[in-house]
Amino acid sequence: MNGRVVALSGGVGGAKLAQGLARVLASGELSVVINTGDDFRHLGLWISPDIDSVVYALSDLSDPVRGWGRREETWTFMAALKGLGGADWFALGDADLAMHVERSRRLAAGESLSTVTAGFGRALGIDARLLPMSDDPVSTRLLTNEGWLEFQEYFVNRRCGPAVQRIEFQGAAAARAHPEALAALQDPDLRAVIICPSNPFVSIEPILAVPGFRAALEQCRAPVIAVTPLIGGKAIKGPAAKMMQELGYAASGEAIGRRYSAFIDAFVTDASDPAPAPIAGVTLVQAQTLMRTSEDRVQLAHAVLAIADRLT
Amino acid sequence: MNGRVVALSGGVGGAKLAQGLARVLASGELSVVINTGDDFRHLGLWISPDIDSVVYALSDLSDPVRGWGRREETWTFMAALKGLGGADWFALGDADLAMHVERSRRLAAGESLSTVTAGFGRALGIDARLLPMSDDPVSTRLLTNEGWLEFQEYFVNRRCGPAVQRIEFQGAAAARAHPEALAALQDPDLRAVIICPSNPFVSIEPILAVPGFRAALEQCRAPVIAVTPLIGGKAIKGPAAKMMQELGYAASGEAIGRRYSAFIDAFVTDASDPAPAPIAGVTLVQAQTLMRTSEDRVQLAHAVLAIADRLT
Repeated sequence: MNGRVVALSGGVGGAKLAQGLARVLASGELSVVINTGDDFRHLGLWISPDIDSVVYALSDLSDPVRGWGRREETWTFMAALKGLGGADWFALGDADLAMHVERSRRLAAGESLSTVTAGFGRALGIDARLLPMSDDPVSTRLLTNEGWLEFQEYFVNRRCGPAVQRIEFQGAAAARAHPEALAALQDPDLRAVIICPSNPFVSIEPILAVPGFRAALEQCRAPVIAVTPLIGGKAIKGPAAKMMQELGYAASGEAIGRRYSAFIDAFVTDASDPAPAPIAGVTLVQAQTLMRTSEDRVQLAHAVLAIADRLT
Repeated sequence: MNGRVVALSGGVGGAKLAQGLARVLASGELSVVINTGDDFRHLGLWISPDIDSVVYALSDLSDPVRGWGRREETWTFMAALKGLGGADWFALGDADLAMHVERSRRLAAGESLSTVTAGFGRALGIDARLLPMSDDPVSTRLLTNEGWLEFQEYFVNRRCGPAVQRIEFQGAAAARAHPEALAALQDPDLRAVIICPSNPFVSIEPILAVPGFRAALEQCRAPVIAVTPLIGGKAIKGPAAKMMQELGYAASGEAIGRRYSAFIDAFVTDASDPAPAPIAGVTLVQAQTLMRTSEDRVQLAHAVLAIADRLT
């Protein structure tokens, strides 16, 4: 079966499934709507971590060992910056820096984030459409036991230590959803929407907080399938499990499936976990969701597309 | 003999003598007034090539082989930038980039160029005072047979190919000389002013174009000694000789000595050149001006200071 697919993705975990989907789908079939709530300005540069994770994954530039950033990276800039007394809490590889410098330059010259991102995709040979959720700035902020923190301050500088009490997406209510992303979700011939295994609170929900996306998912004629980012109650990377507990949820895929239940048709938990209790209106499926290798990514992509096709 | 010394410097050649002077003089004795006419904005970053050359020379970070930039440099950023279709005509090493990013950040935060430069000097253990000629922007522009070119466009992108007809220092007339630099030149106890072997037209004269400097040199009570940047009618690096011929001068140290004669007390040509014809009011001295090694720099520093002390 063929047809267009929309994936919603945050950073590393989501990018892996996006990469699997890109390998499985034909040219022009995949659009990836990417969270920009983690974007921030640092050292005067505009940094879009989730866009870059997706770009690196889809251009085969991801570092396979470190789990983030670019392969064959060097760190000369950071060492020199530290030598000047500069802020070194956010690690910027030398190659990675090219994205931030060039993005900042083009944004300052008046290009939109989506134009810049599409340009990077073209330059790096990426066939999928890369769609930032919005060209307007949205900032994920967390109310913690130590007060409000910007996302990167919490995530990188504080290493997710502070307990999260509340999350807000500053600017989201006024942000305009990327029109191509909304149009892709409203496409009557859409084959599937895949919500990638990303943190629901800080990767997927910032997208849903931009007016239009939640309604487009609820009204979507194609099946919407979400993949758990938790295996055995733990995230492969990142603070999803800790954050869920702090916010009063069970740290389980099932809890995420319930949270998504108003707009998903199927929810995929890991094959190694016990089958979750039924969720009204949601088909529950188990599959191998851990993506260690490129083959794992392709396999999971095939699995979620097969689920979508069965539901159609 | 002891005492404070002011050096006027452009980039690489000047920075070498500044390094020699820094080794020879005691702590607190050396101030280096640095050309900022080559400064430019590139990729959204503020780049100050001559300041950086002096900083690298005085912190022993200069690359000894390449002749510019930092030692132990890597080039990952440039390769990645090229991969994104970014502008790659101006080579920015990964470590070098830290200077531009951090400088740009601090300038955007409201610090002056001289505060930023002094901070870099402290961070890198430089004892000499580093004084940008002005905190106000001055841009060296060249009228060539191909029209007006910004300095870096001419120097790097066009590799000094176009024939120079006229040079202007945009912003110089309105720029305020660095007050510490002017005060240092007016210091009644000053031991010497050294005009380093830099291109007279695009490294030293931008400094002189900022109101106050030329008068301070003319009225200076300490001896002012200039060192030729030309040996055998050629510059060690850069377009000085070609530029002189295009502007109608003989490409010789002597011609530079004449051009400086209103404000210098002595002029040093290279020992390998024929003794220049007398210049009224200027003591002519020959010395080894080629600085291949660190010892050469120290030796030339000793030589120019000895000349100053003899003239006092």
